[in-house]
Amino acid sequence: MEIPVIRNILEANSNLAGDLRMLFIRHGILALNLISSPGAGKTSLLERTLKDLQAEFRMAVIEGDLQTDNDARRVAATGAKAVQINTEGGCHLDAAMIRAALAHFDLSELDVLFIENVGNLVCPVEFDCGEDDKIALLSVTEGDDKPEKYPLLFNLASALVLNKVDLLPYVDFNLSQATHFATRLNRGLAVFEVSCRTGQGLHTWYDWLRARRATKKTT
Amino acid sequence: MEIPVIRNILEANSNLAGDLRMLFIRHGILALNLISSPGAGKTSLLERTLKDLQAEFRMAVIEGDLQTDNDARRVAATGAKAVQINTEGGCHLDAAMIRAALAHFDLSELDVLFIENVGNLVCPVEFDCGEDDKIALLSVTEGDDKPEKYPLLFNLASALVLNKVDLLPYVDFNLSQATHFATRLNRGLAVFEVSCRTGQGLHTWYDWLRARRATKKTT
Repeated sequence: MEIPVIRNILEANSNLAGDLRMLFIRHGILALNLISSPGAGKTSLLERTLKDLQAEFRMAVIEGDLQTDNDARRVAATGAKAVQINTEGGCHLDAAMIRAALAHFDLSELDVLFIENVGNLVCPVEFDCGEDDKIALLSVTEGDDKPEKYPLLFNLASALVLNKVDLLPYVDFNLSQATHFATRLNRGLAVFEVSCRTGQGLHTWYDWLRARRATKKTT
Repeated sequence: MEIPVIRNILEANSNLAGDLRMLFIRHGILALNLISSPGAGKTSLLERTLKDLQAEFRMAVIEGDLQTDNDARRVAATGAKAVQINTEGGCHLDAAMIRAALAHFDLSELDVLFIENVGNLVCPVEFDCGEDDKIALLSVTEGDDKPEKYPLLFNLASALVLNKVDLLPYVDFNLSQATHFATRLNRGLAVFEVSCRTGQGLHTWYDWLRARRATKKTT
């Protein structure tokens, strides 16, 4: 009795996400959906990226949180346009929320749109938001077993940002094991070892972003 | 159209959870539902607790994960009885899963039952598993803003275990701010600052557990 209902919700979401995807293609926008546990560093990665690449790209952010507009204010402080969605208890963003948020942007003025999903390794993975790529974040303080335990995200993501590598000396995290699990699930996965706190390794993520954006340019 | 369906699911779950709660009372079992982000340290807290208190209580664990039986094997290595539930993509445990798992235990042989929920700060909070208390875990590497951003868990939990305090010197985490947010949401919240890695502070958690268990003893 439950399953058909859930399937209908997911189907309706997929249809709407398809419309959004066409919209992004029409405007040459690269749309990236950032997914991780709470506190893995999505907002910190965005703060760094928005600052460091502001001369290269016109970027905007849709922030998803249960409550508060803390994250939208953090990314807006970099000068980027940001819209906050409060899900009021909802555990993921969906395509309808993204469509509503897009009304606040002039899409002809955008090169890259970041969607920062609700902090959750499970539910956001199942709801297509029309993005070109899902970006998984995992911080080394969370444990190297997470790709094995939450396989769907690592299977569907285009890139894995391994954050907080500055804390590696203080935690028990086997970097090669985590990468091995993740790339066994997904051979095409690009992996970046970074610290958003110190800036270490971020240039590799930026290079990927530039290459990915280059494939989306209109004519 | 969606909302009534979700309400029915939650109501059915609550009814079943009520039955489980009666069952736990009848057997004088203290049932605790551990909820946190992935990697906050639920399994590590259980490993320590099961070892350190094994002479005092008869304890068992129901482990919830999307995939793998890694965590059940970790806690079983302490000598405790453990049952693994694999949700196959599901983002939370519910009362029906707990009921099914209970068939593997002799309840007359149990003092404390730990339920380790799926790593997720959102969905598990809404599904009553018949527990006496929800125990929130938060590691200091996740950021001090989490109680404000995920208020429902901190509002409903009886205790907050602040884990990984051995990493405080290396991260930007304001302990008093996190505690302030959490206790503003919930004045009765017991807060324990611990490191499951070094053992620091765990005696405060054990004392709470002893006191809580004492209220449940069958005459």
